[in-house]
Parts: sequence; structure tokens; C-alpha cells
Amino acid sequence: MKGSDINLDYQRRQRIGFDEAIFCDGKSNDQITRILDEAGEKDVSLLLTRISANTCEALEPRHRSAMDYDTVSRTAYFGAAYPIAPGPARVAVVTAGTSDTPVSSEVARTLNYFGQDVLEIRDVGVAGIWRLLDRIDEISDKSVVVVAAGMDGALPSVVCGLVPGLVIAVPTSVGYGVSDRGRAALHTALASCAPGLLTVNIDNGYGAACAAIRAIAPTRPEAKD
Amino acid sequence: MKGSDINLDYQRRQRIGFDEAIFCDGKSNDQITRILDEAGEKDVSLLLTRISANTCEALEPRHRSAMDYDTVSRTAYFGAAYPIAPGPARVAVVTAGTSDTPVSSEVARTLNYFGQDVLEIRDVGVAGIWRLLDRIDEISDKSVVVVAAGMDGALPSVVCGLVPGLVIAVPTSVGYGVSDRGRAALHTALASCAPGLLTVNIDNGYGAACAAIRAIAPTRPEAKD
Amino acid sequence: MKGSDINLDYQRRQRIGFDEAIFCDGKSNDQITRILDEAGEKDVSLLLTRISANTCEALEPRHRSAMDYDTVSRTAYFGAAYPIAPGPARVAVVTAGTSDTPVSSEVARTLNYFGQDVLEIRDVGVAGIWRLLDRIDEISDKSVVVVAAGMDGALPSVVCGLVPGLVIAVPTSVGYGVSDRGRAALHTALASCAPGLLTVNIDNGYGAACAAIRAIAPTRPEAKD
Amino acid sequence: MKGSDINLDYQRRQRIGFDEAIFCDGKSNDQITRILDEAGEKDVSLLLTRISANTCEALEPRHRSAMDYDTVSRTAYFGAAYPIAPGPARVAVVTAGTSDTPVSSEVARTLNYFGQDVLEIRDVGVAGIWRLLDRIDEISDKSVVVVAAGMDGALPSVVCGLVPGLVIAVPTSVGYGVSDRGRAALHTALASCAPGLLTVNIDNGYGAACAAIRAIAPTRPEAKD
Amino acid sequence: MKGSDINLDYQRRQRIGFDEAIFCDGKSNDQITRILDEAGEKDVSLLLTRISANTCEALEPRHRSAMDYDTVSRTAYFGAAYPIAPGPARVAVVTAGTSDTPVSSEVARTLNYFGQDVLEIRDVGVAGIWRLLDRIDEISDKSVVVVAAGMDGALPSVVCGLVPGLVIAVPTSVGYGVSDRGRAALHTALASCAPGLLTVNIDNGYGAACAAIRAIAPTRPEAKD
Amino acid sequence: MKGSDINLDYQRRQRIGFDEAIFCDGKSNDQITRILDEAGEKDVSLLLTRISANTCEALEPRHRSAMDYDTVSRTAYFGAAYPIAPGPARVAVVTAGTSDTPVSSEVARTLNYFGQDVLEIRDVGVAGIWRLLDRIDEISDKSVVVVAAGMDGALPSVVCGLVPGLVIAVPTSVGYGVSDRGRAALHTALASCAPGLLTVNIDNGYGAACAAIRAIAPTRPEAKD
Amino acid sequence: MKGSDINLDYQRRQRIGFDEAIFCDGKSNDQITRILDEAGEKDVSLLLTRISANTCEALEPRHRSAMDYDTVSRTAYFGAAYPIAPGPARVAVVTAGTSDTPVSSEVARTLNYFGQDVLEIRDVGVAGIWRLLDRIDEISDKSVVVVAAGMDGALPSVVCGLVPGLVIAVPTSVGYGVSDRGRAALHTALASCAPGLLTVNIDNGYGAACAAIRAIAPTRPEAKD
Amino acid sequence: MKGSDINLDYQRRQRIGFDEAIFCDGKSNDQITRILDEAGEKDVSLLLTRISANTCEALEPRHRSAMDYDTVSRTAYFGAAYPIAPGPARVAVVTAGTSDTPVSSEVARTLNYFGQDVLEIRDVGVAGIWRLLDRIDEISDKSVVVVAAGMDGALPSVVCGLVPGLVIAVPTSVGYGVSDRGRAALHTALASCAPGLLTVNIDNGYGAACAAIRAIAPTRPEAKD
Repeated sequence: MKGSDINLDYQRRQRIGFDEAIFCDGKSNDQITRILDEAGEKDVSLLLTRISANTCEALEPRHRSAMDYDTVSRTAYFGAAYPIAPGPARVAVVTAGTSDTPVSSEVARTLNYFGQDVLEIRDVGVAGIWRLLDRIDEISDKSVVVVAAGMDGALPSVVCGLVPGLVIAVPTSVGYGVSDRGRAALHTALASCAPGLLTVNIDNGYGAACAAIRAIAPTRPEAKD
Repeated sequence: MKGSDINLDYQRRQRIGFDEAIFCDGKSNDQITRILDEAGEKDVSLLLTRISANTCEALEPRHRSAMDYDTVSRTAYFGAAYPIAPGPARVAVVTAGTSDTPVSSEVARTLNYFGQDVLEIRDVGVAGIWRLLDRIDEISDKSVVVVAAGMDGALPSVVCGLVPGLVIAVPTSVGYGVSDRGRAALHTALASCAPGLLTVNIDNGYGAACAAIRAIAPTRPEAKD
Repeated sequence: MKGSDINLDYQRRQRIGFDEAIFCDGKSNDQITRILDEAGEKDVSLLLTRISANTCEALEPRHRSAMDYDTVSRTAYFGAAYPIAPGPARVAVVTAGTSDTPVSSEVARTLNYFGQDVLEIRDVGVAGIWRLLDRIDEISDKSVVVVAAGMDGALPSVVCGLVPGLVIAVPTSVGYGVSDRGRAALHTALASCAPGLLTVNIDNGYGAACAAIRAIAPTRPEAKD
Repeated sequence: MKGSDINLDYQRRQRIGFDEAIFCDGKSNDQITRILDEAGEKDVSLLLTRISANTCEALEPRHRSAMDYDTVSRTAYFGAAYPIAPGPARVAVVTAGTSDTPVSSEVARTLNYFGQDVLEIRDVGVAGIWRLLDRIDEISDKSVVVVAAGMDGALPSVVCGLVPGLVIAVPTSVGYGVSDRGRAALHTALASCAPGLLTVNIDNGYGAACAAIRAIAPTRPEAKD
Repeated sequence: MKGSDINLDYQRRQRIGFDEAIFCDGKSNDQITRILDEAGEKDVSLLLTRISANTCEALEPRHRSAMDYDTVSRTAYFGAAYPIAPGPARVAVVTAGTSDTPVSSEVARTLNYFGQDVLEIRDVGVAGIWRLLDRIDEISDKSVVVVAAGMDGALPSVVCGLVPGLVIAVPTSVGYGVSDRGRAALHTALASCAPGLLTVNIDNGYGAACAAIRAIAPTRPEAKD
Repeated sequence: MKGSDINLDYQRRQRIGFDEAIFCDGKSNDQITRILDEAGEKDVSLLLTRISANTCEALEPRHRSAMDYDTVSRTAYFGAAYPIAPGPARVAVVTAGTSDTPVSSEVARTLNYFGQDVLEIRDVGVAGIWRLLDRIDEISDKSVVVVAAGMDGALPSVVCGLVPGLVIAVPTSVGYGVSDRGRAALHTALASCAPGLLTVNIDNGYGAACAAIRAIAPTRPEAKD
Repeated sequence: MKGSDINLDYQRRQRIGFDEAIFCDGKSNDQITRILDEAGEKDVSLLLTRISANTCEALEPRHRSAMDYDTVSRTAYFGAAYPIAPGPARVAVVTAGTSDTPVSSEVARTLNYFGQDVLEIRDVGVAGIWRLLDRIDEISDKSVVVVAAGMDGALPSVVCGLVPGLVIAVPTSVGYGVSDRGRAALHTALASCAPGLLTVNIDNGYGAACAAIRAIAPTRPEAKD
Repeated sequence: MKGSDINLDYQRRQRIGFDEAIFCDGKSNDQITRILDEAGEKDVSLLLTRISANTCEALEPRHRSAMDYDTVSRTAYFGAAYPIAPGPARVAVVTAGTSDTPVSSEVARTLNYFGQDVLEIRDVGVAGIWRLLDRIDEISDKSVVVVAAGMDGALPSVVCGLVPGLVIAVPTSVGYGVSDRGRAALHTALASCAPGLLTVNIDNGYGAACAAIRAIAPTRPEAKD
């Protein structure tokens, strides 16, 4: 019975331009191993997200050695990266505070996997707005700006009022009390008075990166050839 | 039976320095009339809040003529105002958008009733942060800054990061969807990354004004004599 | 006092590429009139959203006659439209059911105001998935796909798994019970298993259109000259 | 005192056609042991659900050896299974993703305990809808289709729009952020635009299986003889 | 533009065995009129749900006269009913209180439209459990039991512990305070300790009836010929 | 500083008829030790609730030996019990399932501490209502009936419709998914259709017992002498 | 069909000591009329609750004239009151503010219907705690104290710490913002630090009165003869 | 990459009168170490909050020895304290129960760091209101009163009705069930009937202390010189 619960979606790249990533949180080591076996056999690369250092350590050496693992973002590249949108950085990733780094790193690592460089600007939350204003011209040059913020989640609104590009908020689960594991920041982004701010699920750095890729390269692979 | 459900709190001024106000929303015209009768007999002034123009119109002429009514803030002064904290303006009232005016006006009218002048600055929400930055020095001079904002409620956080005085957020019920009649703005204020931001209930302009008075004049009347 | 609560943001176009729109729900006729007066004096065009037919009727003839009003979307153009991103349609707007039309029309009317044509495809919800599959190739050609859906809100996930472009969900307040005025549809979009789905607030068609403009034209006006 | 908190319901089979199962999560090992003792004495079979491998290991050997335990579904058969509805598979169990397997396995194991074979189809979530469409004819042949899905929970709606049989959604607690431990998937199922979709509590695979049995064999035992 | 937002799903009967019904709440009279026109032209019957007496009155005479309207359930048959599952009553519909009648009537009217007779038993809530126990044998004979209950929503659990057939709870929005427009009753049904209780959305009598039809006739029309 | 955060309320017995109990969950061992020291010095008895076996083990031997500890209810008597309402059992404690025993035992142990015997009836939940009906006459004889139930929480409603005495629901945190750690059971009790059902907080067995004492002995000690 | 949705519960008095009351909110005039007809025919008295003045006016003269209606509490006695627990007042009803009067009047009117006099004390909320302390000795003499409070709902906790009798909180829907139509007051009562505080649903004055009767007369009618 | 996620805000003192504190919960030891290194190099003092004893133990000796750590409040002073508002105690800190001590200690330690002495009064919750009344004159003398309370959170309302100074509620996460990790206490404070009560996020003792400093010293440092 066990083998049959893996059903990797090989049509995805053809449809939407990039491959399925493997969200590892909640999957057993046994399931991850079988997925890597299948990918290895078919010689396809994989991006793994939300994979803890412990899980990574527990994988078999042949899988572990084929991986480029990053502790902060908890991502791994299995096989060669897949440069879907190469070229100079067209995306900025901005954070409100030090604790948002794991999420912003997931954004950056996913974009790097797809061949995109990223401009990273950190710890410029609204409690000291001058830190953002010092960097706003750099940020305004990018086509897409991803802003990761927890607690009050006010930074994405402020950024979205200052730049012309696509702005994607990633609410983070940083905070306590009414922050409610990211709910307050999510609602702040959705209820923003800045026109056109977009949002993904709490802590969903991978999703924000995929959206950025869609904005930069909104076509199927065949169209790109 | 009816007469006995009015129990005006005449000890309040002696205890906390100012009188009970009458929150009219949810009270019947009959109840309001009996309250005004009692106040009239005892010759005490009253501040009435959340009193609609329709309710006001329906009062008896002798009560209506003794009132200074304001449509925007839905407040009325019955009798002479009570200058508990007279002097030059030590409080600024700031709003994010035009729709927050009813709430900010309740703050200003309450402070005026207590003898305080107010610096009002409106429509400087974070979607265009330069509007706030143009006025920030004026605001910084005040001991207390009350900030009314609905939708994302991001403005109080930004103000609180820029001024040294006491900052009180009044989340307003402006917005739709996840704004949830002010809940999103409330949570933004409570989860603020700016140190020391304080909050009152949604749309509670009266409460913010009372807190401002407590900050300016934190003593009982006997102590002031 | 009244005049000062209007503070139109004339720097916005310069910063983010397009002007402030006027969200009319919750504003008094008096406030809207003063805004139109100011705009008329300065000879700037305005997009008005959430303006009911009744409100529109009640405006002064000189303002009413300068308006192009649309009942379904409850939008009005005051003055000439502002073609920020002219050209053939690069955006598709898709709805799940007939009741989502007011929201999808707000998307289309906003994009039209900015000079964008739109491909509109309606009533293709997942209860009869073949209706969507019949049209999917047309949709896949667009750079941006906006999907309006209430109730279960499943359509944006399905679309996002089938097309390579940017997909923006607009949850609508259509439904009853646990639909909770759009909350269920919002959560479905945010929790989507399709990679890169983006979301705006419930019923926020204007926001989705602004985001589409940002994706298509991510630069400030000076950069475009 | 301790012995008296066990009150097995021996009339249940006579009333509703099948016996009480033992939900082990939250019960102490001492309580489970006394239940098995009583069942052993009376020579009745029992289905145990939500029993962890650790709990199972800690039971006394005489109980452990009388059990058929399954790790993935965390179910155990104590004594012989009870074939209430034998015959060829009339039920399909479908999952959206690999992480839904524990729940779908609880459905299958419960049905197997009652003598029903099951058609299991896994990992066909809506992010790649073609995976489902490839298998839809097989699924349509069944009288009952149980669909386990977490995150956005969109799969049950899509299935319910494609098949004529009874469709039961089992929302799973898979996901993060607004998934809210299965709430988003639950609301998606309840607010479905597909007519007649039914729902059980989050992760309640046992309940879905019981409902399937009720649909297939809606009579009391005496009626069946 | 207006004509194109109607996209009736004519494949539904072929797929799932019955036609689309028209949920009228939230649709404009103009939209309903165009739907009836299209149905009239194609000579198909329609079931309309949540159609108020006022809406019905306002339709054009040619549509109004072709309708069988019921005030209590707010349903209308447009054209001849569609006997998908004729035969003696296999479904019981039970209510907890008098105020649940509109919902239970929607269940009954929908089943009648599909040719099913129904056993209706009303006002047997758990505050006086003997009223239910007097009728339980009649209820137990049915294959499907639909139980409509608001407030505490305890009745479906009690029924599901007493009968062998499929039991479907329809939580109703009857009640106040923590009843929360049906949420308490919904959660009671989902958290039921009775094995196999199924649930639909609050007040969704139509959905419960469709599920009953699926349980009784789980095949596509071609399979029935 | 540390000593001063203990402020035992010695006036409570005089005011409300019984002493303060010590809720131990969330208190440090150091705090509990200082409380027991103070009680020992003043020679007063104490009831301790929510005290885990581990906490109890870690106390100093002189305190441990002065305690009568019960594992299931996690309560301890420190010193002699305090028979405020002695006499034959006037209270029944009823549970829906085996997992509710810890809570019902807290009720019984608290009543025992105050000198009341208790009639305990367990595992008679509504999924098999005949179990309750077999015992209802015994229960009806009592002045107060405390009913502990989790999951759907339907049992208190049914009991309250069958007995004339005071009925107090104790919702328990038993269950999963929408049970939401007792919220569903709490709302069921509050929204009950049975007249006069009363409720305490989730898992608050101690509170229910205190209320029972108030019902039986509603006077201050001086009044009883 | 219509006649059969009325099923008055004539066994209730025999079981729990008092008759069913008719909750009129949500019932049509037609349903209320049929209920009164049936009661009139059988010559039984009825208590009607939540019956608006408008509904009352619209009843037929023969029903209207047989009623003792009270505007504030929105209750009516149809026929003679039913003195189940006659005697001097053993219940106090206390309110926090003027706006809680409709709810406290429902308590008093229900108790009066059952023959109980009531001590009513109003407008003694905790913002001026001395108002309560002035009256606390009178209140302490009663066996049961019902406390109606909205907004913060702090009064029941304070009362419950000062009196030995049974204390029942009735949270009221008075307030705005986070008061959330009574939810804040409800949670305050349930989370009370005062031992033994009991609660009913928001605004449920009738339920509190029934509980008071159960506390005073906890026996079936046969036992009282 | 790692070094760049630290961006200490050295302009904060100049803007708002005091320095950034380091919230340690959620930061890695590596991040805290780099922050202390930077502060050490620049010779600035730091206040660290929410730093567990374990985290503190794990720091390098050179950092550990430069710290004044307090276990109860989980705060540390790194370097010399910063006496922004020296002088006799103008702030009182009051708690409802023993379990609120960690939060009230965070308030006191933060104020001490800024040079303020504090009057601490503990365990005077409303279940025994006389404990508060005994101390109320001392409390009334202070300009600012911070009140920490969990569970029902009623104490801040009572205090705010008795004193003339600024009153700041700190809801604490003490309690269970509907206390909901502090939500009930938060809502009680926000919905308070006492005029002018202010609130911070749950458990946010640091924020309350900063607000107290703003009230006492509402000017920028340059203004103080």
C-alpha cells in the first residue's frame, strides 16, 4: 500500500512553467525517501521546503550528499537548480525584523533555485521608518517587491505606497498575543489602504517566490523556446 | 419601576477627576429624558456621546435648547462645559483617512468640553507616508497624540515610532472584509512593533480623550485646589 | 473645520504610477461633493468606487453630468480615463458564478479606466469543471488572471494549477453560513495548494486591478518617458 | 471508583447496526486495558482508533498479541473483524496529497473491519487537476466517495461535481497559517457550490467510514436476517 | 455585457444525475428573469431556492404563472417537477422546533421535486426527549434521516444514536448569542459522539436533499435506463 | 521581593462561606511551597486543584506527607477537609464519556472536601441515550446535577429536560477538530433549548462544585450558627 | 401541513416542574396565533418571551385582551400566572447599567410569573464600585443573585466575591467593538476568578430565572404535594 | 549573509527618548550574540526582554558576566541602566493574582532600567475586592497605574473607576478555557465601562512600561537638556 501514496506531478512544468516542490513538514522520513528515490531514478531536480535540519540529518547518505541544504530557510536543492528566469535581480525581498529572516530566506532561496538573483534588505520595520526611507530608491527599481513582516505587519502597506512595482506581503508568525501566529499581520496586509497590495498565506515564502516568477515569466516553457 | 434604573454617579468627579458622560446609543428617548431632567434639577452639566441627530431632534424643546450639538461627532454638551484641564493644546489628534473624522471629532469635542484645545491633522494615512512626515514636527511637540485609523490601522505604529509623547490608537470601524468592523486595526495597534503604543476599544474616541485628560491632569479635584 | 478633512494625495501618481481612487462607501455626500469640487478645480480625473446609484443620483447636476457611471460595478469615472497601461488585453477576469459579477465588473472597469482591455469569462465554477476546461487555453495566454469566487472559493486554486501567469484571487462575500461573508473563500485562496496564488481582501476588485497594473507596468511615470 | 468509568454500549449494534469503537486518544493506558479486559471476558471484538504505536507497545502482551495494528492509520482490530457489509468495493477513498494518507487509511481500515473492500486513489489534488480527471470514471462507479483533503480543501467540491454517488468530505488538519488545523478545508467543504456534498469533523476518518456503512446498509441487524 | 453572466450547466444531469438549481438570494430580478427566459426557451424545468415572496411577486406574469411557489420553504418549481427518484418515502425529515420549519420545508420541497415522498416529524427537540422517543420506530425504517436543528443542535446526535440509516444534520440559524447564526449547532453536529453523523452548511436544506438523492440513487441517468 | 506576591484571602470564608482554593497550574513550585508554609503556620486547611503528580512529588516531604492527593482529579487536601455542607448526597455528577472522568472527579473531590457525598454516574452520553434513561430517576432526586461532557456536549441539555433540580454543565476539553478544546461543548450548553441550564468555564470542575455548595448552603458562616 | 409544526410539550411541568415558555423571536404571527389557540382550547397559561410590541399589536383582539404585556421586558402573560414558587423574595436581580434593564426585566417578569417577588437593584456597575458596596448587605441575604451586565461584564465577578448565595451572570449584548454583542461579557463571566459563578447565554434572562426557580424549588410537582 | 540581518536602530533615542530593547523570544542564540557584540563594540547599554534562563546560560561568559539577569521577569540589563526618568516612584504596578507576577515584574524591571522606582501591589483581584480597597489611597497618588490581570481581567476596570491617574491594563495569558491565552482579559479591558482605560497586547509588560515613561517624560532628549 505504502508506495502508492506518491504521485509526483510531472505535467506541472509544462502547464505552469515550473516543477512541484516538496513541502516536507508533516511528511514522514519514509515518504521523503521514496520521493527522492523516484526523483533520482527519473533524474529530475527537486526543491524541498520546510525541511528541518534533523530530518535532513536522518536521510540516507546518498540523498544527503546530493543536497544543498540551508539551515536558516530550511530549504534544500536536490540536484541542480532549475534556472527558469535567469538574469539580473528583478526582485527585492524586504523584512521588518530579525525574526522574519527564516521566511525571507525561503523567498530568496526559492528564487535562487529558479535562477533569479535577489536584493535583500532587512530589519527596516516601521517603528523606525527612516531605515526604510534610506533604501527606498533601490527597492523602487525592482519589478517585484516581497515584504515579510510579523507582529503588526505594517511594513508592506508603507512599501506599497512608495513603489510602482508588484508588492507581495508575506505575513510571518512572529509575535505573541493578538498577533495570533500571523493573523494580525495577514489582516493588516489584506485590509491595506495602499492600492494593489497582494498577500500569501502566513510564512509562505515559497508561494511569494512562485508568484514573483509568474510575474517575471508569465508563460509556459514551450512559449519560451 | 421605571424611574429607578437611573443612578447617576455623582462621586465620580471626586474620585477620578471628571464626571460620568452619557453614552446614548442603546438608551431610549425616555431614559435620556429622565437623565436630563435629573441633571437639570441638580444643575450639573453633562457630556452626551453617540447621540444621533434624530434622537436629538426628538428631545423636548427645553432639553434641546440647552444643548450644543455637533453632527459629525454625534456629541452634545448639556449645560456649560467643564474645564478640567484648561490651557494651550497639549494633545494632537491625527487621522488616517476622511472616514475616520467622526471618531476623531469625538476625541476633539470631548477634550474641548474639558477645556483642552486640540491640534487636528487629518487624512495622513500610510499609503502616502510623506503627508505624515510633512507634519511630524508639529505632532512631536504634544504630550499626547491620539491616532484614529481603520482598515489596516498602520498609522498609529508609524506615529509612535516618530514621537516621544504618549500615543493612543483609536481603531475605527472603517473598512470591509477582514477589516471586520475595526478588529484588524485594533490588532495592528496591539501588536505594534513601536514601543509603548496604547489602545482603546474600536471607535472609542471618548475613552481616548479621557485617557488624555488623565495623562495631563492625573490628580483628584481636591489635589488641584 | 469641515473643509480640512480632505487631503488628496497628488504625489501618488509620481510615486507608484497611478492616482488615488475615491472609495465612496462610508463617505457622506457632503464629503464626496467637496472631493469632486477640488478635483474639478485642479482639473484632475478621478475613479470613484463603491458608489451606489442612490449616492450618484443625489450629487449635484454639474458633478453627475461629468460622470460615466456603471450600475453593476458601482464605479464612476469623473473626467477622462487615465490610460496608464494601454494596449491589447493582457488580463483575464474569471468568475465562479453569476453573483460574483459586481466584483469582477469592478476589476474590469478599473482596468478599462487605466486603458487596459480585459477578457471576461463568467460562471465557470468548479461544480461543473468542464466549463472552465473549455476556456483554459484562452486564459493561459494572459499575463495576469484575476479570479473572483465566493462560497467555497475553489476556482482560483484550480485556475492557478493550469496557467503560467500571475493569478490573483478576489474572494467575494457571496454565500451564507460558514461562507461568513467571504472568509471561507479567502482562506481557501490563502491556503491553496497551487503554487503562487495571490489574494486581496474580500470583494476588493479595485485592489486586484491595481495589482494587475503593477504587474504589467511596474515603473514610475518618469521611467516610462 | 476506577472500574466504574467504563460503560461499554452493548445495545449499539442492535440499534444502529454496528458496535462502539474505542477512541484511544486521551484515554490512559489503564483505561484502555480495562476496556480490553472487559471485551475479552465478553468475547466481543473491538475496533480501536487513534491509538499510537507507543500506546500499543505499552499494552500487556496478552492484549498486544490479540491485535492487528496498523501504524499509518493508527487503528487496531482487537479480535476478529466484524463483516457488517461484505461484498465488492462500493466505496472509493480519494486524497488530495501525501500528507492526507493517515486519515484516508483510517477510513479504509474501518471499512475493511466491517468487511468492505475499498478503492484507494491518492495524491490527486486540484493543483494538478488532470491527475483526478484521469481516474474519474473509476470513481464514478462507486456508491460512496470519501475525499480527504487539507489546506484549501478544494478537491471534495470538484469530485462532487463529477460523480453521481454520495460524496463525503473529510477535511484534514494538513496545512499551516489560515489552514488553521483543518478549519479552512472544513469551511470549503461546507460552503461548496457542488450540490449535496456532506462533511464530517476534521480528521474524522472513522466517522466517514461509519456514514458509508449506513449508506450501504441502512438497516438494523434483525432486519438483515 | 449583461447577457453573458448566465452560463447554465446543462451537463450536470448527465454527470451527477440531477440539474442545477437556481439559488436566488443575491441575484437581481434581472438576472433571474434572464435565467427563466433561457430555461423557457430550452424547455427545461428549474428548481428555484431562497426566492422570497417579494421577488416572486415582482417577476413577469408569464414567469410567475409557470411557477409553483411555496412561502414557507421559499422554493419554486418552474415547469414540471423532475422525478429522479420516485417511489415510497425513503427519507424522514425531523425538526427540533417550530422555527426550523423553513429549512425542513426546503428539504421536503426539494425531495418532492425529485419525486420522493417524505415523512415529516416536527418539534421533537431534546428539551423533551420523550417526544422523539414516541416516534423513533417510524424514523428508523427510513434509509435517510435529515435532522434540522438550531440553538444547541443536540437533536441530530440523539437521532444518530438511535437509527441505522444515513443521518444528515442541517444546522439552522435559529437562536441568539453564542448560537451565532447556526455556528453552535453546526459544531455540535460535527463534534457528535454518534458514529457517522454527516453535516451540511447552516440552513442548507437543498444540499441535504441532494445528498439524500445521491444516497438513494447513486448513479448517472444513463446507468438507470 | 518574592515573598510579597502571596496574599491569601482570609476574609473569603466569612464573606462567601468557604475558603480560597489554590489553583496550581501555572504556579511555580516555589510559590506553592510558600503558600503551604503560610497555611501551615496559620493552621488552615487548603484545597489544591490542578496539581500534577510531578509537582506533588517535588514538594518537600513535610508538605507531601500532610496531603491527601488524588491522581485522576489532580486535587490535594492539605490539612483536614472542611465540612461546610455535610449530610447525605444532594448532588449528582454525571459524565458523557470515560475521558470526562478527570473533570467529574474534580467536582466530586471538591464536594467531598466540603463534606458532601456525591452520586457519580459515568459514561452515559447521548450516542446511546438508553444508558441515561436507565438512571434518570436516581438523578432526578438530587437538588443539583453537574453534567460533564466534551465533544458535542449534548448530554447536559438532555438531562436538563428531564430533571427538576439545578443543572450545571461543565464542558470538557475532550474532542478534536471543531470541538476546539471544549468550545463546541460550551456553546451547546449555553445555547441549550432546555430551560435553566447553567454553565461554567471549560474543565472547571472546581467552579461547578462551588456553585453546588452555594445552592445547598447559600448563607455566610455566621448565619449558619 | 402548517398545523403540524406545533407540538407543545405538556409533559414538561410534570418532569421539571414548570411549563414550556414561547420564545417569539423568529416565529411568524401565524405560528404564535396557532399556539395561543391551542393553549386557549386546553385552558393552559403561557409565558411569552421576546415578543415585540409590534407583534403583540398585530395579534387578534381575543388574544391581545387575554394578555398582560410589558414593553421593557418584551414579555407577556397569557392567562393567569403560575405560582410555582410563591413566598417572599429569595432572588435579587442586579444590573450594571441602564441599558441592561430589558434583560433584567425579563428575569424579574419570569420570576413574577412563577410567583416569586424580586429585589431589583440597578445601575451599580464597577466603574463606580461604591454604588454596589452601599447595597451589598441587602443582596447578600438572598439565596440567588442574578447579575445582568454587558460591555466588560465585570460586575458578576465582583458580586460573586461578596455574597454566599448562588450567583448567575446574564451577559448582555450591550456595548460595541470588542464587546461583540455580549461575547466579551460572557467570557468575563466564564473566566471569573470568583468561585462558583454560573452563566447563561447572552441576554437569556428567561434562562436565568428558570435556573433560580430550580435552585429554590428543585422538585417535581408531585413531590411538592 | 548572516551578519546583515542585524540593523540596530540608533536613531530611536533621539526620536522617542529611549533606546530599542531586544525581544529575545524567537531569536536564535547566534542572533543574540551578534547583537551583544555590536552593542559591546559601540559601548551602548541594552535591555533584553523575554530571555529565558536557558538562553542566558548558553551565552558566552563575556556576555553573561556583563548582564544583570532576573529570572521572574526574564529580563536582562546589558551594561549600565539608562536613567531616562529618574526620581521618586510615580508609577504603581498592581496584579490580580500570583500568576501575574512574571508580567508585572517585566513592567517594574523595565521602569527600573529607565531609573523609575515603582510601587508594587500584588494579588488584589476582584474575587476579594476588600484587598484592593485597603490599598487604593496609595495607588491613587501615582500618575500612572499599570494593572496586570488574566482570567476575567476585571481588576483594571475597577481600579480605573477609583483613581485619577493614567491606567494601563496589561492582560495576561493566565487562565484556561475561554480565557483563551489572555483574549478574555484583553476584551474586558477594551470594553471597560471605566472611562479612559488603556490597553497593551497580552503579556506586554515592556510596552506598558514604555507608555508610562512616555506619560512621565513626553519629550525628546534634546528637549530635556
